[in-house]
Amino acid sequence: MLGRILCTVLFVGAFPSPAGASQGHISVVLLGATGDLAKKYLWQGLFQLYMDQVSSGHSFTFHGAALAALEPGQRLMFDVLKKLSCPPDEAPNRCAVLKDQFLKLSQYHQLKTAENYTALSREIETLLHQEGLKEAGRIFYFSVPPFAYTEIARHINSSCRPPAGAWLRVVLEKPFGHDLESAQQLAAELAGFFREEEMYRVDHYLGKQAVAHILPFRDQNRQFLDPIWNRHHVERVEVVLKETVDAKGRTSFYEQYGVIRDVLQNHLTEALMFLIMELPANVSSAQDVVQHKLQALQSLWGLERSSAVLGQYQAYNSQVQEELQEAQGYVSTTPTFAGVLIRSDSLRWEGVPFLLTSGKALDERVGYARVLFKNRAYCTQSGTLRDSGHSQCKPKQIIFYFGHGALNTPAVLVSRNLFQPVMPKHSWKEAEARSDLHIFGQPLSDFYTYSPVKERDAYSVLISNIYHGRKDFFITTENLLASWAFWTPLLDSTSRQPLRLYPGGVENQHLLDFEMVGGGVAFTLAEPAQLLTPSGQMPSDFRAIQSKFRHSPLVSAWAEDLISQLASDMEEAAVRSVARCGQFHLALSGGSSPTGLFQRLARHHLGFPWRHTHVWLVDERCVPLTDGESNFLGLHRHLLQHVRLPYFNIHPMPVHLNRRLCVEEDGGAELYAKDIVALVANASFDLVLLGVGTDGHTASLFPRSENGLEGAPTVVLTESPVKPHQRMSLSLPLINRARQVFVLVLGKGKHDITTLLSRVGREPRKWPISGVSPSSGQLVWYVDYEALLG
Amino acid sequence: MLGRILCTVLFVGAFPSPAGASQGHISVVLLGATGDLAKKYLWQGLFQLYMDQVSSGHSFTFHGAALAALEPGQRLMFDVLKKLSCPPDEAPNRCAVLKDQFLKLSQYHQLKTAENYTALSREIETLLHQEGLKEAGRIFYFSVPPFAYTEIARHINSSCRPPAGAWLRVVLEKPFGHDLESAQQLAAELAGFFREEEMYRVDHYLGKQAVAHILPFRDQNRQFLDPIWNRHHVERVEVVLKETVDAKGRTSFYEQYGVIRDVLQNHLTEALMFLIMELPANVSSAQDVVQHKLQALQSLWGLERSSAVLGQYQAYNSQVQEELQEAQGYVSTTPTFAGVLIRSDSLRWEGVPFLLTSGKALDERVGYARVLFKNRAYCTQSGTLRDSGHSQCKPKQIIFYFGHGALNTPAVLVSRNLFQPVMPKHSWKEAEARSDLHIFGQPLSDFYTYSPVKERDAYSVLISNIYHGRKDFFITTENLLASWAFWTPLLDSTSRQPLRLYPGGVENQHLLDFEMVGGGVAFTLAEPAQLLTPSGQMPSDFRAIQSKFRHSPLVSAWAEDLISQLASDMEEAAVRSVARCGQFHLALSGGSSPTGLFQRLARHHLGFPWRHTHVWLVDERCVPLTDGESNFLGLHRHLLQHVRLPYFNIHPMPVHLNRRLCVEEDGGAELYAKDIVALVANASFDLVLLGVGTDGHTASLFPRSENGLEGAPTVVLTESPVKPHQRMSLSLPLINRARQVFVLVLGKGKHDITTLLSRVGREPRKWPISGVSPSSGQLVWYVDYEALLG
Repeated sequence: MLGRILCTVLFVGAFPSPAGASQGHISVVLLGATGDLAKKYLWQGLFQLYMDQVSSGHSFTFHGAALAALEPGQRLMFDVLKKLSCPPDEAPNRCAVLKDQFLKLSQYHQLKTAENYTALSREIETLLHQEGLKEAGRIFYFSVPPFAYTEIARHINSSCRPPAGAWLRVVLEKPFGHDLESAQQLAAELAGFFREEEMYRVDHYLGKQAVAHILPFRDQNRQFLDPIWNRHHVERVEVVLKETVDAKGRTSFYEQYGVIRDVLQNHLTEALMFLIMELPANVSSAQDVVQHKLQALQSLWGLERSSAVLGQYQAYNSQVQEELQEAQGYVSTTPTFAGVLIRSDSLRWEGVPFLLTSGKALDERVGYARVLFKNRAYCTQSGTLRDSGHSQCKPKQIIFYFGHGALNTPAVLVSRNLFQPVMPKHSWKEAEARSDLHIFGQPLSDFYTYSPVKERDAYSVLISNIYHGRKDFFITTENLLASWAFWTPLLDSTSRQPLRLYPGGVENQHLLDFEMVGGGVAFTLAEPAQLLTPSGQMPSDFRAIQSKFRHSPLVSAWAEDLISQLASDMEEAAVRSVARCGQFHLALSGGSSPTGLFQRLARHHLGFPWRHTHVWLVDERCVPLTDGESNFLGLHRHLLQHVRLPYFNIHPMPVHLNRRLCVEEDGGAELYAKDIVALVANASFDLVLLGVGTDGHTASLFPRSENGLEGAPTVVLTESPVKPHQRMSLSLPLINRARQVFVLVLGKGKHDITTLLSRVGREPRKWPISGVSPSSGQLVWYVDYEALLG
Repeated sequence: MLGRILCTVLFVGAFPSPAGASQGHISVVLLGATGDLAKKYLWQGLFQLYMDQVSSGHSFTFHGAALAALEPGQRLMFDVLKKLSCPPDEAPNRCAVLKDQFLKLSQYHQLKTAENYTALSREIETLLHQEGLKEAGRIFYFSVPPFAYTEIARHINSSCRPPAGAWLRVVLEKPFGHDLESAQQLAAELAGFFREEEMYRVDHYLGKQAVAHILPFRDQNRQFLDPIWNRHHVERVEVVLKETVDAKGRTSFYEQYGVIRDVLQNHLTEALMFLIMELPANVSSAQDVVQHKLQALQSLWGLERSSAVLGQYQAYNSQVQEELQEAQGYVSTTPTFAGVLIRSDSLRWEGVPFLLTSGKALDERVGYARVLFKNRAYCTQSGTLRDSGHSQCKPKQIIFYFGHGALNTPAVLVSRNLFQPVMPKHSWKEAEARSDLHIFGQPLSDFYTYSPVKERDAYSVLISNIYHGRKDFFITTENLLASWAFWTPLLDSTSRQPLRLYPGGVENQHLLDFEMVGGGVAFTLAEPAQLLTPSGQMPSDFRAIQSKFRHSPLVSAWAEDLISQLASDMEEAAVRSVARCGQFHLALSGGSSPTGLFQRLARHHLGFPWRHTHVWLVDERCVPLTDGESNFLGLHRHLLQHVRLPYFNIHPMPVHLNRRLCVEEDGGAELYAKDIVALVANASFDLVLLGVGTDGHTASLFPRSENGLEGAPTVVLTESPVKPHQRMSLSLPLINRARQVFVLVLGKGKHDITTLLSRVGREPRKWPISGVSPSSGQLVWYVDYEALLG
């Protein structure tokens, strides 16, 4: 049947050019052809593609597919197709003809079994053979629930691949997993069926006109942006999606996802990346764009619990109870509002806060990405004049307005006191400078405002990009996993965080306002009494437990709280020591446990007296300092490079003297000991931070070590049972001269040794850590709940 | 005569308490008793002192003095005294009685010759002896031109000191010199006559109520300010004094001083110090306050020409011509407007801009010190609600309002979204929250606003503080010299800078608006054509001259411009190198010449790819790295500690191996050479920066050196003719392997060697610098005008 239709179009129809026909044939298979998304956007997008590309030289067929049998499926699908509309900028006659053709080129298929897929493929091949057409490629659009992905993928891979020389493009719709692990699993499965370049993961925000124009805007306005698109000029970046609707009717989906997975992990993150990524020399190179975007993602600081504020609109819980038929006592912990502070480690953005915010049941529907610049001007003239014209004292900002809100159209806005941007005239037009409309407290007349000449639906933009193979408009596997790697720790750590309940709509007032405090964010207003979190569900008390362990003080809490307590105690010790004698000698251990501590010190303890602190190593692996195994490198990465420690106060262990590793006669250990004696009064460190191994080792002092467990307070070379074997370490007697020793023990893996240590006495040859007992100093144990309680 | 009067008051008068009378007698001598300042403020201040302290237990006499003979002087003085007014808060009866007493206690003296001073002293002694009074102290208030200071000081010191057990306080009025040198000279002279604790240098701004309350405010509001009074929360600090009047009638004074010496060096700097100094634990300890203020002054970055924008109102030049009877062609280069960007190196304020602004003939009369906080909030609610109440999205600021302007009273204002401040109720009252008045674009109702219960003139505050011996309200010698040391380089470097002419008043429009650009400030608007600087007076062209020197490119300019050109060229080389091969190996020389260059790189070249740069030393003195003589220490201080260079990329010369200095067998030179070979491709530095000594040495390669002038490309130990003798240095052959060598030559002292070098050939044994000639690289000379032209 299709054959005849093809003939009609290709050889009788008025529009396809014979020359173009040599480009080959494209088969579009829409899986889930009768679903909501297909009805609402996809068929219209495919029709738009046909209208746009009918003269491109490609011929097309459109294959709707679903599980339903042929008859009912066909009926359902053609009900949708008949309702396809003609865009206002299309000549009605042409559109009517094209719609007629489009319907004739479209066919329904039941795709359920392997045979169905084989049959579809054969049908396409037969048709093309009959018509003497070369196959250009096949697009499979997965508009189906994710659980169906794997099977469909398997069928396509085994039975529906186009012949050699033609391409395959499979289009996937989110969700792509719900955390890093599930996303990795899904990605691994898909990788078994498709090559990376065959997969087009849709984030429809990348098809929104204002989002899609971020990179072109940055590229076309380099002359203005190059000097100011950095931490010296940008005060903050906000990416926001506010909704007035709530989750009613969708809670079965929403309850599993919540606002972070639904909006922040994908849409807002992607928009942010377009803003902050390094601009490739050639922005039309999809590969460069994808790679730079990935680097931007990887430059972000890890999120912590304090990076986010979370809320839930008050009616949500009862909606869930009702829709999911949960018991009365059921309490949902799914956030419907989130404000997240993100920071980048890149030279360009270091210190600039990126705020991502989204929520349901808010006061207005609006989406935007906004770059606010610092006010660097002093206006000598007084108030009234200050506000006139292009005054440099007015706020300066660039806004990519996704739509809705006061403007009710996608737009790009640039403050008039910044510059008049270069915009492509064929696709963006300057809007009227209305002063009655206000955007972020400023009249619209303060901005150069541009809106699209022709508003296009995101899906039609994306379908066009699939056709053009523009992979930069889609989410690569690497990008997806990097995004989940970034968001998953926050999802994990906030699963215990209390949600602020909010009434919804304008009544939220200032309840959801938040501000940056320390390295994180917090709601501005204290929790109002009448809106308190339902009692009992959340551990309301994160305070560290104080007790005794091996006759010494014990501080215990969940890991994150424990680390924040430890960091505070360290700062206090430092401040006290600097006040007492002008300096603070701190000896730090390597390994993975203290990484979180180092990060916390770097990010939250801005008052730490680094200028007066000397940092020493407790132990080191005999590798070059720049080796990935080096304790010092870890310390440098997570702490030293972020703080202002004078060069002279940094004391890596000399494990690489004369460019060779821990050679006895180079005397590295002796040299370090000499340095300690020369600089540290009485060779007594103000604070030594230790960890504990599962075998009871501490520093690089291992059970039954020949060196360092007793004898002189010195520095020793030791042997580790694990690679790299050679180590340098402070000796136990030297550690025990310290004024304070803090031992940090984290994680379930340490539960056994913790339990053991709670029982045994002082037996350093068996368990070196048991020999730590400062002769005239203080020992404090910091053990997290997992290590303590298993 | 005075004796009788004393009796009347002390034993008959109603107010002095007999108990208090035992505190002793204070003689106040006002030198310049009939001058302008005395008439306008000082007598009134002394009368206020008398009213306030009449019951304190001290008795008083007031001795007006001037050069005029007794008769006319007396008449003039009592004309002033008769007009003394009673403050509104004083009971009229009491005031009338006290005024009568005050007049009787006051006497005129001609003080001209040594004998006059001896006579005055004798008179005081006789009187006190007669009355049986113990002498508490003497106050000498110098309200005389500075040229008269020395002689008066000599007379007081030799003839008018009080007897042992009584104190001497001499009060000095500005100007205290016009630059560092003259201030030092004046201070040295005064130090020959008075001890530091005897001198009270007045800056009447310290007596202004809003300025005087800065420290108490900070102290009483520690709970609120401690967390936010730092670089993490403060966006900028502005200290501003705007005047509407011009200098007409005062140009004979003003032409010598200008706005920086008149207002910024003293008043505005002092107010700024109160804002930024570390708060002593005890703010009523004058000594602590003085010391912390001094530290704050010393923490400021040096000013450069680009730190200021300067202007002159258009009528000023003709006023000067007229008043000083200068010729028609005379062009004044005195600024009447200045905007200055100041930065501090302290941990607390690093990166926070301090803007000091003052000018005559501006649009309004107002003075204030304003601390603007960063907006750290995100307001989820939309526009209208965002602006209501205490919204955290409104600007947050604390303003010490000196007076005049919209408020027309001294005041302390704190944004309501910050905190409600603690204010002393007896001296400050809350003002009405008027919303019709606007301050910095916000209605007054957005602030907690306090004004003084009783407005007091600055001089009466200061006279009271002299009486109380509160030295923290005065300028110590150290403070004065530190302030001049800070301002003098700017005065020197801006003497050549063009002034922006401005019409005066509201017509200035945006002409004097300025903004922070790079590390400095610049006017926002380009120079309007019709207001161009009078031609011919300023060297309008600061561009670097390009030419040849010793067959290599020569760049020449005034030192500051030369350094800025060199820094830009270095950044360009770095960026190019990083783009080419991912890193940049830079070898830097020590000494004083490159200090300005290092500072410029640190402050202005924010895009320098430090993360990918390796810094090596060209040469080093054999001293520990932390020794003041160490090249590395200078490099660290002026550059390394301000940029983010990874620890691994910093390569000090190993002159202190095994804790001993340049011992041959420690092999430091060989080790450095090995490091270079290991890390620098082909041992070819990307850029070597050299200097030249007056003897033609470069690096630490001295004339006739046995090592390093020829032979292998390596690192050598050398001997310097000057201390410290031992040096380590790259050898000439190693330097000549570099891809680029820049030689920086600065200052008149280098003129002779520069001239010589322009003539001689390649004779490295005589002049090592003449042997620099990169075998396959480029050599560029950066020689300033002074070195080139003498």
